[in-house]
Amino acid sequence: MRHLLDTATLTREDALRILDTAEDMSDTQRREVKKLPTLRGKTVVNLFFEDSTRTRISFEAAAKRLSADVINFAAKGSSVSKGESLQDTAQTLQAMGADAVVIRHGASGAPHTLATSGWITAGVVNAGDGTHEHPTQALLDAFTMRKRLYGDDSRGRDLSGTRVAIVGDVLHSRVARSNMWLLHTLGAHVTLVAPPTLVPQDVSAWPAQIVYDLDEAIAAAPDVLMLLRIQLERMNAAYFPSEREYARRWGFDARRLAALGADSMVMHPGPMNRGLEISAEAADSAQSTVLEQVTNGVSVRMAVLYLLLAGSTTSTATTSTGEERV
Amino acid sequence: MRHLLDTATLTREDALRILDTAEDMSDTQRREVKKLPTLRGKTVVNLFFEDSTRTRISFEAAAKRLSADVINFAAKGSSVSKGESLQDTAQTLQAMGADAVVIRHGASGAPHTLATSGWITAGVVNAGDGTHEHPTQALLDAFTMRKRLYGDDSRGRDLSGTRVAIVGDVLHSRVARSNMWLLHTLGAHVTLVAPPTLVPQDVSAWPAQIVYDLDEAIAAAPDVLMLLRIQLERMNAAYFPSEREYARRWGFDARRLAALGADSMVMHPGPMNRGLEISAEAADSAQSTVLEQVTNGVSVRMAVLYLLLAGSTTSTATTSTGEERV
Amino acid sequence: MRHLLDTATLTREDALRILDTAEDMSDTQRREVKKLPTLRGKTVVNLFFEDSTRTRISFEAAAKRLSADVINFAAKGSSVSKGESLQDTAQTLQAMGADAVVIRHGASGAPHTLATSGWITAGVVNAGDGTHEHPTQALLDAFTMRKRLYGDDSRGRDLSGTRVAIVGDVLHSRVARSNMWLLHTLGAHVTLVAPPTLVPQDVSAWPAQIVYDLDEAIAAAPDVLMLLRIQLERMNAAYFPSEREYARRWGFDARRLAALGADSMVMHPGPMNRGLEISAEAADSAQSTVLEQVTNGVSVRMAVLYLLLAGSTTSTATTSTGEERV
Repeated sequence: MRHLLDTATLTREDALRILDTAEDMSDTQRREVKKLPTLRGKTVVNLFFEDSTRTRISFEAAAKRLSADVINFAAKGSSVSKGESLQDTAQTLQAMGADAVVIRHGASGAPHTLATSGWITAGVVNAGDGTHEHPTQALLDAFTMRKRLYGDDSRGRDLSGTRVAIVGDVLHSRVARSNMWLLHTLGAHVTLVAPPTLVPQDVSAWPAQIVYDLDEAIAAAPDVLMLLRIQLERMNAAYFPSEREYARRWGFDARRLAALGADSMVMHPGPMNRGLEISAEAADSAQSTVLEQVTNGVSVRMAVLYLLLAGSTTSTATTSTGEERV
Repeated sequence: MRHLLDTATLTREDALRILDTAEDMSDTQRREVKKLPTLRGKTVVNLFFEDSTRTRISFEAAAKRLSADVINFAAKGSSVSKGESLQDTAQTLQAMGADAVVIRHGASGAPHTLATSGWITAGVVNAGDGTHEHPTQALLDAFTMRKRLYGDDSRGRDLSGTRVAIVGDVLHSRVARSNMWLLHTLGAHVTLVAPPTLVPQDVSAWPAQIVYDLDEAIAAAPDVLMLLRIQLERMNAAYFPSEREYARRWGFDARRLAALGADSMVMHPGPMNRGLEISAEAADSAQSTVLEQVTNGVSVRMAVLYLLLAGSTTSTATTSTGEERV
Repeated sequence: MRHLLDTATLTREDALRILDTAEDMSDTQRREVKKLPTLRGKTVVNLFFEDSTRTRISFEAAAKRLSADVINFAAKGSSVSKGESLQDTAQTLQAMGADAVVIRHGASGAPHTLATSGWITAGVVNAGDGTHEHPTQALLDAFTMRKRLYGDDSRGRDLSGTRVAIVGDVLHSRVARSNMWLLHTLGAHVTLVAPPTLVPQDVSAWPAQIVYDLDEAIAAAPDVLMLLRIQLERMNAAYFPSEREYARRWGFDARRLAALGADSMVMHPGPMNRGLEISAEAADSAQSTVLEQVTNGVSVRMAVLYLLLAGSTTSTATTSTGEERV
């Protein structure tokens, strides 16, 4: 693998390779072997044009556990805000020695441009671009589902037949899109559950069923109910009347939790708006995978960085630790 | 030790254990052995809801010298500012692998809530909460006093009989509170020196004497005179007439330095407002321990992180360096 | 070397020592030996009073490749913004264990004050001060010229006879000043090319020729044409009519690129304003050294940190890795 840009074009084989490698990473973490020397001497740059402390920290933790050096580049207050182009920023980071660039950008397609323009040879990981994709989120979600379903017997398996309902603001959600494509590739059946105002116009072309009522979706007893985060700044009257009205009609509350089968997983990418799209009872229930998702996020990102970077060490001059005296 | 939340409930035995461990840390630093592998593979998160570059850097330096990985989480611009709860933030950090959370929070009691709520199992260190406590500051101050008084013969000793005057805005100061409790536990006699408007109402219940005149406190020849930082944003007319008036009546200037015995220590937690609560002559005098306090702060924080984290490595699968090939 | 404060007083011998050491650093990087243990246990503080992500990251990458610990101290939101003096900030950082302070400051002379005041003993590196100097930029530029001119045969050579034209806002540019002094010391001939409004009044005392027309400077076929970044916030009517007018008269565009000899280098310190002081054709041409400058910047900063810090390890108690068990 050279880059990880989306799940729409990720093959089943590559997806399973990432998930199985993440199993290995997860195993080492569970055994309290937190630090692996695999990427010693490699530099990972977190190039974040939008704030996202949670995603940035997850990548940072993943890189550090593989012994990579991490450099955080927040675009605010940097030369980017002085008008430097994405091309120049990326080329500068590579010229400083970046082996991988983890990019979060407000514009859909920016990571793809970075990876395919020929500007840089470093590996590019999409950490969320506009309303397009957030592939590592989808991979950690799939990892979490597989682990809950198959436990230690997860390796090599896909999600054939698993029924997943994705609930909320599908229109603006890159998480929904990345999950839908990956789940489809892995054999799962996806239902999108959203108010008509928050469904994209081109949804009929997607490999998913649409439902406009949450209770109806719950009655269908999905294996997984995945709630999307409401971006409060987008919840204006054009899309939905009010927070209270959203919580009433689309919030996963105690009543709906009871209606859902006890074997169904409840997922949320975080950070949660407790009391809005998810109630405290649901968030803290045994069915909730919220914290497993966070933990698995580190394993999945370790796997992605490993697959992008570990194969590229070709020097014969390095010692076993990748170090040498000057 | 599981957490360090305050000095009010810290036992004499635990306090001395921290101070003596800090002596070991201080020794290794003096011998230019700056890097210890003790916490390799451990992750320390600095979770700062208020800016405090100085305290954050001190914890960061301490953690890095013990070879821990450090992740800085500033609440501004993060999901916290998007309404995420302290519970979710903390659980997320632990799910990402945090072994210790160093928390600075504007609300008194936030670290206690974090440690006792059952939300997380990671060690919690209070790095300052509201007007409540700042325990590592008090520990580094006690370490500094002991070192000045007893030098290489410090280990195992408390501060019995030492007379300490704490001067300034006691009402708002968590540094004053943490020092008072710890010094009392260690056998010192504490005098609080403040204008009547800056003394808490419940001060009569504290194990300290109150004096309302700085010159009177100096005339009593304390072993230690500790000046508190004036938070300029709080110095409104309700508490005190003006900066000039404060400096005149409560500033530790050249005249008062001369009046103080040459054997008395002059302490300040920093950052100093030179010319306000402390003059340049006093700050740079031989009696000043200001820079020793900073240096000792790193040793004390190394000791705290060591005592919280070093005992928890139980894996038998790790190699001697805590690393393993994948 | 104790500090690196400017190039105006840097001797030819020290300049060549830095450049030759940077060659060694560059060699190890090229051989994919990215991590050297040389500065393990040393702490480098980036003390930045002005934002400069690019320079900060370059120093950070350099320090990390030498295995130093890096602490980033941005003055904004820190105690500095609460009125702490430069003296107290610097002494605090050293008391926490800083072995070197890399300082970027808006006031010309601040690094010099820091290094010569007796406040601290840590090494001081000027990372740009006011309109005064930016010595590592000049050193990386000289390194880049020498490498283009002499390739693997660069070691020990100066730039005797090389003709360099520096184009743009010379008045406000610390890059221009540092380059001019260093190039003069290394035997190069410098021509400053600028509108009369952007030439300093004392320029007649400088070891450089002045030309007021870019096309005339190009016609003289310099070996190197170095473009300065236009600080847009300074381009008010007092200095120059408009961006469009600047681009027309002073922009290095495709026509001027064609007029320049094919053997001449085109340099720019970055970040570039494409379409203003440099066109895309020029920036991306084979003559452009822009990305080499960035790469060489890391090597030069590794060399500077190495020369300042590697000699100061005097302990006999350290093991070969600078580590010890506690």
